[in-house]
Amino acid sequence: MKLSTIAWLFFLPTLSSPFLLSSPSSLTSLAPAPTQPKSSKSSTTLHNDFSTPTPPPSTPLLDTINDPSDLNGLTIPQLKQLSNELRWDVIRSVSKTGGHLGSSLGVIEMTVALHHVFDAPEDKIIWDVSHQCYPHKILTGRRSGMPTLRQLGGISGFCKMKESPYDAMGAGHSSTSISAAQGYSIAKQMLNKPRNNCIAVIGDGAITGGMAYEAMNSAGYLKNRMIVILNDNGQVSLPTGTPSAGGTGAASSLSATTSQILVSKPFQDFREVAKGLSGLFPENIQEFNKKIDEYARGIVSGGTLFEELGFYYVGPLDGHDLDNFVPILEKLRDSPSNKPVLLHVKTIKGKGYAPAEAASDKMHGVAKFDVATGVQFKGKKGPPSLTSIFANELVDVATEDRTVVGITAAMPGGTGMDIFGRRFPKRTFDVGIAEQHAVTMASAMAAEGLKPFVCIYSTFMQRGYDQVVHDVAIQNLPVRMILDRAGLVGNDGPTHHGAYDLSYLGCIPNLIIMAPSDEIELKNMIRTAHGIDESPSVVRYPRGTGYGVEKLKTLFGYDLPEGIPSEGTAVEVGKGRIVRTSSRSNAQRKDKVAILSFGTRLHESLLAANDLEEVDSDISVTVADARFMKPLDIDLVRSLASSHSAIITVEENSRGGFGDAVLHFLSLDGLLDAGDLRFRPMNLPDAYFEAGPQYEQYENAGLNAKHIKGTVMKLMGKTAVPQLA
Amino acid sequence: MKLSTIAWLFFLPTLSSPFLLSSPSSLTSLAPAPTQPKSSKSSTTLHNDFSTPTPPPSTPLLDTINDPSDLNGLTIPQLKQLSNELRWDVIRSVSKTGGHLGSSLGVIEMTVALHHVFDAPEDKIIWDVSHQCYPHKILTGRRSGMPTLRQLGGISGFCKMKESPYDAMGAGHSSTSISAAQGYSIAKQMLNKPRNNCIAVIGDGAITGGMAYEAMNSAGYLKNRMIVILNDNGQVSLPTGTPSAGGTGAASSLSATTSQILVSKPFQDFREVAKGLSGLFPENIQEFNKKIDEYARGIVSGGTLFEELGFYYVGPLDGHDLDNFVPILEKLRDSPSNKPVLLHVKTIKGKGYAPAEAASDKMHGVAKFDVATGVQFKGKKGPPSLTSIFANELVDVATEDRTVVGITAAMPGGTGMDIFGRRFPKRTFDVGIAEQHAVTMASAMAAEGLKPFVCIYSTFMQRGYDQVVHDVAIQNLPVRMILDRAGLVGNDGPTHHGAYDLSYLGCIPNLIIMAPSDEIELKNMIRTAHGIDESPSVVRYPRGTGYGVEKLKTLFGYDLPEGIPSEGTAVEVGKGRIVRTSSRSNAQRKDKVAILSFGTRLHESLLAANDLEEVDSDISVTVADARFMKPLDIDLVRSLASSHSAIITVEENSRGGFGDAVLHFLSLDGLLDAGDLRFRPMNLPDAYFEAGPQYEQYENAGLNAKHIKGTVMKLMGKTAVPQLA
Repeated sequence: MKLSTIAWLFFLPTLSSPFLLSSPSSLTSLAPAPTQPKSSKSSTTLHNDFSTPTPPPSTPLLDTINDPSDLNGLTIPQLKQLSNELRWDVIRSVSKTGGHLGSSLGVIEMTVALHHVFDAPEDKIIWDVSHQCYPHKILTGRRSGMPTLRQLGGISGFCKMKESPYDAMGAGHSSTSISAAQGYSIAKQMLNKPRNNCIAVIGDGAITGGMAYEAMNSAGYLKNRMIVILNDNGQVSLPTGTPSAGGTGAASSLSATTSQILVSKPFQDFREVAKGLSGLFPENIQEFNKKIDEYARGIVSGGTLFEELGFYYVGPLDGHDLDNFVPILEKLRDSPSNKPVLLHVKTIKGKGYAPAEAASDKMHGVAKFDVATGVQFKGKKGPPSLTSIFANELVDVATEDRTVVGITAAMPGGTGMDIFGRRFPKRTFDVGIAEQHAVTMASAMAAEGLKPFVCIYSTFMQRGYDQVVHDVAIQNLPVRMILDRAGLVGNDGPTHHGAYDLSYLGCIPNLIIMAPSDEIELKNMIRTAHGIDESPSVVRYPRGTGYGVEKLKTLFGYDLPEGIPSEGTAVEVGKGRIVRTSSRSNAQRKDKVAILSFGTRLHESLLAANDLEEVDSDISVTVADARFMKPLDIDLVRSLASSHSAIITVEENSRGGFGDAVLHFLSLDGLLDAGDLRFRPMNLPDAYFEAGPQYEQYENAGLNAKHIKGTVMKLMGKTAVPQLA
Repeated sequence: MKLSTIAWLFFLPTLSSPFLLSSPSSLTSLAPAPTQPKSSKSSTTLHNDFSTPTPPPSTPLLDTINDPSDLNGLTIPQLKQLSNELRWDVIRSVSKTGGHLGSSLGVIEMTVALHHVFDAPEDKIIWDVSHQCYPHKILTGRRSGMPTLRQLGGISGFCKMKESPYDAMGAGHSSTSISAAQGYSIAKQMLNKPRNNCIAVIGDGAITGGMAYEAMNSAGYLKNRMIVILNDNGQVSLPTGTPSAGGTGAASSLSATTSQILVSKPFQDFREVAKGLSGLFPENIQEFNKKIDEYARGIVSGGTLFEELGFYYVGPLDGHDLDNFVPILEKLRDSPSNKPVLLHVKTIKGKGYAPAEAASDKMHGVAKFDVATGVQFKGKKGPPSLTSIFANELVDVATEDRTVVGITAAMPGGTGMDIFGRRFPKRTFDVGIAEQHAVTMASAMAAEGLKPFVCIYSTFMQRGYDQVVHDVAIQNLPVRMILDRAGLVGNDGPTHHGAYDLSYLGCIPNLIIMAPSDEIELKNMIRTAHGIDESPSVVRYPRGTGYGVEKLKTLFGYDLPEGIPSEGTAVEVGKGRIVRTSSRSNAQRKDKVAILSFGTRLHESLLAANDLEEVDSDISVTVADARFMKPLDIDLVRSLASSHSAIITVEENSRGGFGDAVLHFLSLDGLLDAGDLRFRPMNLPDAYFEAGPQYEQYENAGLNAKHIKGTVMKLMGKTAVPQLA
């Protein structure tokens, strides 16, 4: 094979004109003048309709949109106007509710284009994670609901199937959209649906999750018709295998002309011809040629990884340029091809709103804010968050012990690993959206002598569950797992509640599981976990702030220091504590009830206890803090059982958790046999709790003080249940 | 830029001689004569020392190996002899115990080479999944233990940290090795260990798992020194993004010379020079050039995906050719580079043993067999496996309902999807080692109107846990999840027990969870699940065969048909049944005990009941089959509670499962308050059960008839506990 032929094949895909189809024999002459790759800097000069954004005074076009079919007949200039109106509608709306702003602003044009070109809900548009779904919600009949966003009884901050038929798949966790698109595509094909357009929109962060890779592998193999839009806004701080971060983040957007040629039917035919030609060459060269076309585009555009996975790669193109984007989507829609397509789109997070574009986090998640300035309204200053208390304690621990390392899976801010990372950048590992990997990597670190703290939200640890069992617990390796957001989480709603960890971890041998009841206990338990070298350990605590030690002291007066101690003190593993004994020291057993709390519901338990003794002169209430679910403090449980006529457990977890563990023990120990001890578990009901304020969720879940009080009253045979003040 | 220069860069990495280093200016002259890619057929002609295998009559060299350090001074010819002896030692050993043969035979030379070049246990050799670890075990002091392989009290069939310091990381589940290697590498670096050699050996199947991708992303980004050996034996039936299956499976092994040049220090320096040269070109060309070197090797060898992920790719090379393999490993060991390396090695599964090479499954997992012929000794024919009963029932269901589809994650044989797939190839989806993807894909299929049956072992569903919660249960989509191998699994041991699914699924709202007690019930429950369109449902059952209806009928005589019915009958959701009532119809409540079983322990319960009534004339035993854990049949529980003085639950799951759910209900319902009902849950203890026969594991877990009987006797105040015949 001559060099010139190879070179010709090499440059084949970058040819800028399809006229050559008619004379393939002349192709070699084109080799010396291939289309040059674009400047690698052009990604920062994306086409921008909003370089000097002017908020439209009104939204006349948007006002006419009741559902996506109203976009069908609009012209490109009208779509641009609609985008402008929609952008400012999102800004104004989120300024009044708070929410995810930056991501939504980055996909304004994409959302308009998708709903213009495709026919949802028959066509499936699937937003990965879906915190970028606000413009989609506005265009799909939920504009009037936006003022209730993320509020109790309002519309969800994420896509939600029950909320709208246009939400093809609910989300909240990352990297699920490609799997969903494939499922829809297969189903449409099998059920002979007249159309099969399934579009997954996935960010450059979300596509790093292992299940996105599993899905691309599967889709590339099964060759299901689908479009994956890689929404590349360069926000991934972690370089990954994706083009935005793996070295080609600076790849240029293809010109409008070239992108359109890549998806045009004649060009695709041409590629087939080229592949056919290669059949004339000896076998080893055939294989070589077969790859040339696919790889060559990768070289200029960074799409090779996707081609390897079996996708037809197109891009990158400017996601804010409707002149270009709309016709490309139309071509993909009208293509008869069944091969999955990856459309690489560059967007700017926070696009078109100067304060967002300027912000380091692109105003990703915001409180209410002033539209003119972008300044967010801060709530009143309260006690520090449990997250920050954990992180600062870990910094102290790590200052003394060089073997302590911190691991997060793309949630440095949420887990406090940002605080830890500022102090110990070389001992902090952000592995990306990769909970599975994080846990197993930590197991090997522990095996070699480090003390890894793996910091993952309770709900996201579901992604690393098998690794907790297989790599950490079975091997009994001392990995410290810090589960933030354990319990009901507030406005993020059902996908984010940390409602199951005590159930899914409580059944696993070797684990030590603890939950702090307040910020001091949290510090103590970080010290405790640090000291546990013989087993893996778990510390789980809810979203929110500490209580403020002074407040606790005033309210309850149990054994507390004057303020938050500068450092925690390890507690004895497997031992709980009694935090309140009744002042009615000579009460009879039949009148004595014990509330055994695990976690931060301790204070609701104390409130209930105080109120109970106030309203009923017979009842005597003990309150205990279990501290550990595994190993359970069976001495404490036996002691409470023998001196009280009733025990109530309280926890922020579903069934199968702490209360059932206590009950299981009581049963095996025969402590319930004689009929002199009653037991009631109080835990999260078997239901999903919608978005809303955290306190309201606990109210609905029946885990506030008044519910604890009510349970005690009923159990003690008191019918009147006065409301707690 | 001239074409000739581009072409030169393009072929740079395939140059076969490093002499050019001294005169880079003359390089262009080489362009016309690049090294040709090898024939794509050469993968089938790997170097073969064993084309006519001759079993060595004795193993003089192997007899001298007490630990891996004994390999250090051996010459290549001696290593070849050792490989030959080792291969036949593995064959003879496995012929007497059964086990995983094919994978182990494929890595004989690799194992010898790794232990010759590296110094375990200080250097970490991590075997992914680890069913290929038998030669490793033999070389690391466990040769004498091989006759006890996978037996109770014997050595494990997998790597196991507690068994040997040479087992750097235990395994059993797939795709964890790269994460482990990275964890070790980081720890060694941070702890300033004098050496840092961490090697993950991972197959072309295991590398398709999402967590392997997460780990490669992370390792490529953090640039941790490590070697990933892709053991590519072309056994993946699913094309994937990996070279073996993504289109370059036929890529040739590089010649010994070229492979060695690729990892040599001068060559690496040369690549740096080439990269530096590109700085002289305009910026857009720089980016272009920068990728040329990396991509070009990909084009000829298929390693592009790994280069994208940040690995230095070397290969493919012949994994049976020690002349080549050993010096390459030595170069990698001695390289000061911190970049992770992917070494692509082609091997032949079953290598060197003609019956294995000829077998379609390469004798992957075998019973005892005759060495001369490879013919396996079959056990006596018993009732059909529950797996096959499920699969055949699903075939019947799918024959009537065209919307039924089956999904497996790389376990078609183990789940029965091979049977289903032979009948309905277009309705069967094997997504590879991708449980996460399987579950979410199924959720979308269900949303669009298909009836997906996702068939995954209980232990592997731990990998898809978050997806069950987030995509299936929260959205209440009617995905049917079929969990085979739920309970204790026998010889595979702790990593494979399905001991937790009732705990990790029982806490999730919306799920319907059922467990059949025998093969007829299994058929009924497949029909039941098929009919449940409003919720997701789970059917879980253990490894093993049915009981044989005739046997059940003879033994217990409860309402059973004459033989296995040709098709199952849906049962009422949420309703259990009483299968045995005492003949002592006028027994008093205080003498009546109910055994409430969930799953196939029903028959141990019946045996216990019969024996109890035989040995004690006072006791009256009712046996009920709960059928459903969710929704729990509370009418049945209340009825049993009111008419018996004791209830015992029996299940093959850890705490937090069925028994605790019953107990939770009894407690909330106040049924334990009066002291006239005692309760004992019988479930798997909070411990790991080592490999051994399934019955022995249940014996050790205390879940056989005699234990049930003992629990009843004790609970009913009987001190004598006669042994069950």
